[in-house]
Amino acid sequence: MKAFKLANPLRPLVGTNPASNFWKVTTKPTSARPFTSSHPLHRAVITNNSNKKDMATLTTKTGQTIDRQVMESMLRRRMFYTPAFEIYGSVAGLFDYGPSGCGLQANIIETWRKHFVLEEDMLEVDCTVLTPHEVFKTSGHVDKFADWMCKDPKNGEILRADHFVEAILEARLKGDKEARGQKVEEKEADPKKKKKKVKSEAVKLDDAVVKEYEEVLAQIDNYDGDQLGQLIKKYELKNPETGAEPSPPVPFNLMFQTAIGPSGQLAGYLRPETAQGQFTNFAKLLEFNMQNMPFASASIGKSYRNEISPRAGLLRVREFLMAEIEHYVDPEGGKKHDRFSEIENIELTLLDKETQLSGKTDVKTLSIRKAVEGKVVDNETLGYFLARIHLFLEKIGVDMSKVRFRQHMANEMAHYACDCWDAELLTSYGWIECVGCADRSAYDLTVHKNKTGAPLVVRQKLETPNVRQEWTLEYNKKKFGPAFKKDGKTVEAAIEATTQEQREAFAKELQENGSFTIDVPGVADGKASVGKDLIEIKYSTITEHVREYTPNVIEPSFGIGRILYSLLEHNFWTRGDGADEARGVISFPPTIAPTKVLIVPLSSNKDFSPIARKLGQKLRTLGISSRVDDSSATIGKRYSRNDELGTPFGITIDFQTVKDGSITLRERDSTKQVRADEAKVLEAVREMVTGAKTWKDIQGELPAFEAQELEVR
Amino acid sequence: MKAFKLANPLRPLVGTNPASNFWKVTTKPTSARPFTSSHPLHRAVITNNSNKKDMATLTTKTGQTIDRQVMESMLRRRMFYTPAFEIYGSVAGLFDYGPSGCGLQANIIETWRKHFVLEEDMLEVDCTVLTPHEVFKTSGHVDKFADWMCKDPKNGEILRADHFVEAILEARLKGDKEARGQKVEEKEADPKKKKKKVKSEAVKLDDAVVKEYEEVLAQIDNYDGDQLGQLIKKYELKNPETGAEPSPPVPFNLMFQTAIGPSGQLAGYLRPETAQGQFTNFAKLLEFNMQNMPFASASIGKSYRNEISPRAGLLRVREFLMAEIEHYVDPEGGKKHDRFSEIENIELTLLDKETQLSGKTDVKTLSIRKAVEGKVVDNETLGYFLARIHLFLEKIGVDMSKVRFRQHMANEMAHYACDCWDAELLTSYGWIECVGCADRSAYDLTVHKNKTGAPLVVRQKLETPNVRQEWTLEYNKKKFGPAFKKDGKTVEAAIEATTQEQREAFAKELQENGSFTIDVPGVADGKASVGKDLIEIKYSTITEHVREYTPNVIEPSFGIGRILYSLLEHNFWTRGDGADEARGVISFPPTIAPTKVLIVPLSSNKDFSPIARKLGQKLRTLGISSRVDDSSATIGKRYSRNDELGTPFGITIDFQTVKDGSITLRERDSTKQVRADEAKVLEAVREMVTGAKTWKDIQGELPAFEAQELEVR
Repeated sequence: MKAFKLANPLRPLVGTNPASNFWKVTTKPTSARPFTSSHPLHRAVITNNSNKKDMATLTTKTGQTIDRQVMESMLRRRMFYTPAFEIYGSVAGLFDYGPSGCGLQANIIETWRKHFVLEEDMLEVDCTVLTPHEVFKTSGHVDKFADWMCKDPKNGEILRADHFVEAILEARLKGDKEARGQKVEEKEADPKKKKKKVKSEAVKLDDAVVKEYEEVLAQIDNYDGDQLGQLIKKYELKNPETGAEPSPPVPFNLMFQTAIGPSGQLAGYLRPETAQGQFTNFAKLLEFNMQNMPFASASIGKSYRNEISPRAGLLRVREFLMAEIEHYVDPEGGKKHDRFSEIENIELTLLDKETQLSGKTDVKTLSIRKAVEGKVVDNETLGYFLARIHLFLEKIGVDMSKVRFRQHMANEMAHYACDCWDAELLTSYGWIECVGCADRSAYDLTVHKNKTGAPLVVRQKLETPNVRQEWTLEYNKKKFGPAFKKDGKTVEAAIEATTQEQREAFAKELQENGSFTIDVPGVADGKASVGKDLIEIKYSTITEHVREYTPNVIEPSFGIGRILYSLLEHNFWTRGDGADEARGVISFPPTIAPTKVLIVPLSSNKDFSPIARKLGQKLRTLGISSRVDDSSATIGKRYSRNDELGTPFGITIDFQTVKDGSITLRERDSTKQVRADEAKVLEAVREMVTGAKTWKDIQGELPAFEAQELEVR
Repeated sequence: MKAFKLANPLRPLVGTNPASNFWKVTTKPTSARPFTSSHPLHRAVITNNSNKKDMATLTTKTGQTIDRQVMESMLRRRMFYTPAFEIYGSVAGLFDYGPSGCGLQANIIETWRKHFVLEEDMLEVDCTVLTPHEVFKTSGHVDKFADWMCKDPKNGEILRADHFVEAILEARLKGDKEARGQKVEEKEADPKKKKKKVKSEAVKLDDAVVKEYEEVLAQIDNYDGDQLGQLIKKYELKNPETGAEPSPPVPFNLMFQTAIGPSGQLAGYLRPETAQGQFTNFAKLLEFNMQNMPFASASIGKSYRNEISPRAGLLRVREFLMAEIEHYVDPEGGKKHDRFSEIENIELTLLDKETQLSGKTDVKTLSIRKAVEGKVVDNETLGYFLARIHLFLEKIGVDMSKVRFRQHMANEMAHYACDCWDAELLTSYGWIECVGCADRSAYDLTVHKNKTGAPLVVRQKLETPNVRQEWTLEYNKKKFGPAFKKDGKTVEAAIEATTQEQREAFAKELQENGSFTIDVPGVADGKASVGKDLIEIKYSTITEHVREYTPNVIEPSFGIGRILYSLLEHNFWTRGDGADEARGVISFPPTIAPTKVLIVPLSSNKDFSPIARKLGQKLRTLGISSRVDDSSATIGKRYSRNDELGTPFGITIDFQTVKDGSITLRERDSTKQVRADEAKVLEAVREMVTGAKTWKDIQGELPAFEAQELEVR
């Protein structure tokens, strides 16, 4: 069999331990598919270079071990999300967001829009999802946006080639451990992990084979279809269900295809990213921006990828919300950013490519200024956005101890990309790529410009014209062609290719001898003699008033669903000790929580209900979402229910309220309460919900209330 | 040829005048397709029952005639919207929203969310666009969501059958007028009106033929495919380009189809509406709402329809944003609404079905209370939403003199719908259906429940159990069947069908005679004698603790793109007299305008620019979007540019600002200015942008400023 690299020196050998591999949900080709990995969210990566240390830190903010099954079951029960069309059996990779998830998503988006679009005067656009074939042909998606799949010839089952190889080899390694009597860490059954469940048999392998399997698994992301096919043959990998060897892997394009219009002739795709709509509108956007550079466009919208085997809940789905920025910058002048000084001292957790090359995952913490100065990050504009992404994640409540920026290695990036970093968030599924931030150079605008001829360029009026002296050529067209006959073009090309120095020499020759001789490979004797009747070479003054260039694109690209899921995991914890059943709490920041206030009448006393209704009305006027829970459950139970929804504040209406209008305000995480008159409490809520004050501030301002503490805790 | 109705008595004969037909962009089947028209936005109707009087009122708020071409060219230039992928030649029916349109859309959506979702505690969901085949098979879309198309056998051109018939007959009528020497009102060339451009020839028709053609055109919406095919044959309608008669019309399903997953086996569609995702989640939503009824779900998202011939700009497109509410209500108790009293005095402009039946389009203005009391509108809940829709349209700045609620006629509604009204907005394209509001009865939940077995029902715990006494039957199963042999089931059915009175009589007979005789049609002698060994009839107590029912759905359904377009037309006007070139203005309410404030430094003096930047920052903190225009254009020109974007306020920074911090505030429509210190002006802007105060209020509070008036006007 043909040799293919068993170990790619460019990829660290991490994740070889099956236990640390468990959460390795994907497996992204890199050198095999520069296109896709160049745009990180194209192939939403869940990287496998976590290590035990990372996973060991995987506890809630309160130090509890995360029980994902308990959490996910709660999230579904409280309708953060739910499999779409479940009453019809549901479809893999399609999820609906219920009221809680939808509200959370809306608040994340609103924060994103304020943090990026409004703050930086970005030009937001809303482009169509339906995209004609030609656009994605030009962008490269039609040819390269694919995964490798193979088919079981017996039962027709379709397998994702890399997942298949991985599953069988892992099962063999597990069987080997069993045979050796080693402890096998049992992987938890994960209903959303669709990777083929392969039963292991206790068969001892040679030590060399174990090592080889481990090496293959460590770089499973790097194989292309041929290589995966060779692995299947070499190791005789069979589908355990049928005993058959799958067919050789073929590429499967991940774009959903459809036909636009009644003829069925116009092929279209559902976009796998929002970027192309922004690029194709570049000329109009520049015009709208009155030709001012730099500027950015932005877009929030659904994208689609026809995953072969969707899994890991919200992390690998077929329909998802993206928010993307395309920042257009002059490639000359070092890509400076004029607001860089505002963020230069922000410290980021960086995992650079050198570290990864050395097989490590140790992060370093650097101010973004130092990172740019030290050339860890390529340029100021890219660095500016990395810091802004960091601030955004912090603002929405991501646990910043579970964030790192991982640099793409050379073999992960497309040839045209300058530098690329992913903001990865640590979850129980591993390090999840949630935001990509790439310097895509002039690639995108160039390919569309070349294909369509549209002027996707900036014409910069030069304040002082660019004046220079240079040797220029003037042909006597009528005589030049006939003089060289069929070699005319070749000779002309040779002359055009001359340097300024050569031209100066030729000009001298022309003046002195009336002609010059030039080497022209490909013509009769390899030389041509050009007389002064055919050409003039003059030292002229060139004045340029306009500079034309194709801007480079810095592209921060956010997978909202992944951020949302990670946010849930980062803010989830449970309350209650041995006696109690553990009760889930989600500690969203008040700005992000879907519902801000729970209104709880103490009992079903009929005096309470109009007060509750009016309170809701007043909160609405303040733009604060609230819900009334006037069910017959105990106050404690009603609060618990809303702790699961992440509702940060609770207002109790009791008999005292009827008497003097005072209400109690309870904070979700501490379960502490204060009591004051309605106006003061509402003002306190408003201030906390807008982020102007914290609960601690309010505790300093309003008197504590203890009476119902026992029941509420 | 077979007879088919040439005039449907249920449809008014309006729009027969070609002049009033011009803007009749579509043509919706009704009786032919009860399904689609039952859900009005399914088949976004542009109704043809406008009349000259309606169109005569078609002026701007300032009384100017609307020049649509001028307006639309401005809207594209200022990037409200633009054909998608224009550099690739664009695709019919796909539009991108630029920064202005995107901002406008976001503000409409935000207002919608506050007005409906937040105000009424609706459960917002975000369901997938991708939907498996089976769901739309059940809902009826797979079989019935279609238009009729035919094909030219010579050149393969695909024609929408109703449009084709319409175009040819209109051309013949026009030719007739020419031949008769009558004045022909020339239709303006409309680049977006894709209806076949048919050249008329001056050929005089018989008077009877003219009448027949006009009748056909008046009800072109009512024909099904067979009927359209018969019209083509009867009138010998040929494609002018080839002279060929098109093939018989066949249905073309308007859903975009795709394949989900790698096998290609799982057919899916892009949803043509957001409703089905809400219905299929009903049981979970009810659970989330703690079993409380009534409640509503809501959804904002893209929907897709593969129109055969998209046209009329944003009004008939293939990808569009919808906002839909599904309000679930108990069918018993008259569908009362407990907040009805809050809106009962709102007066609506109604075009009811009786008026339309009589061939008229005269509207009546009625309070919604009177409309419900008088049974013009079927019930309180439907009426409540009509009034809330009215308030919403008013809030976003729709010209309420160009709004009417048109009731569906019996032949437009599906058999299961109780009542349906469309909010139609008058534009230069005619009356545009922008919001549908239908009482869909229990149809949707019932079909999904029947198909899947999912409990899409409400189980209402009865406070006091429903206790009643009634005569019940108890069979001696072992003996009953054998006693009647093959007639057993028939006899049993006859007994089951008895009334309480009959059973009482039979019970008496049993007691007295030991048997009773019952008529059983279909058995030997038409009677059966049933003895007391076979059956007992007892007077028993029945106690029901739970009532189970399928809720009815009231569905307000908003086409956001259509509302957005109408809003643009309703707020557009031009400023400037003879001397000046007319300058466009869009008078959005401040709450809706995409950008709220334009910041204009008087000149390029370098003292101004830091002030402008700080001002922008302060406005951002207040959540108010602004733009700085520091170009070298005159102040007047810069304001003009932003009048075209509908920016309501302008702040000028001048030398006085540098001295004392005062700034001028200019209002877009009046071009009047006030001057005050920065804090006061910002507070004024905040109050106007949130809708708390009007410009008139502010003029009363802050001193007027006249100095730059001449330049600015």
